[in-house]
Amino acid sequence: MDNCIFCKIAKKEIPCTTVYEDDKMIAFLDISQITKGHTLIIPKKHVENVYEIDEETIAYLYSKVPQLAKAITKAFNAKGMNVVNNNGTNAGQTVFHYHIHLVPRYDENDGLRMIFTSNMDKYSKDDLEQIASNIREQL
Amino acid sequence: MDNCIFCKIAKKEIPCTTVYEDDKMIAFLDISQITKGHTLIIPKKHVENVYEIDEETIAYLYSKVPQLAKAITKAFNAKGMNVVNNNGTNAGQTVFHYHIHLVPRYDENDGLRMIFTSNMDKYSKDDLEQIASNIREQL
Repeated sequence: MDNCIFCKIAKKEIPCTTVYEDDKMIAFLDISQITKGHTLIIPKKHVENVYEIDEETIAYLYSKVPQLAKAITKAFNAKGMNVVNNNGTNAGQTVFHYHIHLVPRYDENDGLRMIFTSNMDKYSKDDLEQIASNIREQL
Repeated sequence: MDNCIFCKIAKKEIPCTTVYEDDKMIAFLDISQITKGHTLIIPKKHVENVYEIDEETIAYLYSKVPQLAKAITKAFNAKGMNVVNNNGTNAGQTVFHYHIHLVPRYDENDGLRMIFTSNMDKYSKDDLEQIASNIREQL
């Protein structure tokens, strides 16, 4: 896709620091290095987000995640890993070519903070049944 | 596995609000409902994290993510989706049975905040090459 920075990386039109590559995907270092070893996985073909990606492609990309997560963790003695895919501006997506972040973690005060606000008290059991029912209707 | 709350959910020993289920996995509402429709996907068999899960299982779980993400989004007119898997205490994992969070997003001030601190200025091109080399050695 024209003007997509990750398509240009996939086509070698702009450089990246490659960790792993095959005919379908490329894993390379995120230049922001939120933490040391922060890696992105992208499909070579252009898809914008989780709403557009096909089952076969997403399954293939994630099949490589355990091996890459283990290698990153071992290389830098990380203490954990966040595997994150953001879709849409409100979810923090900034490049609109599907990508998975592998963010190795060293301690809670490194470059990534995730703040989850629980709403456990807001929903009754009946509310939850209604929410699940609404989702199942769309499946 | 004894005393694993997600194993107990998979075996129907404790209840959950099911969105989708088959012989390998179950998708159910996270009781914390960080945002409305917040869903967890788990494998029925016990694996602790991304370091333990096999390629076939992770690929299968994620093959279902696009369909579930679309259904949740459509059900509540969400504006985006974070797909998050946390591994290790330092990464925010609190239940030690592998799980994927699907967190639909409505606006930037809803129940999930992710703060990414860029370290772009910290690493030279040579530093990045060294980091990638260290990871490739472990692949």
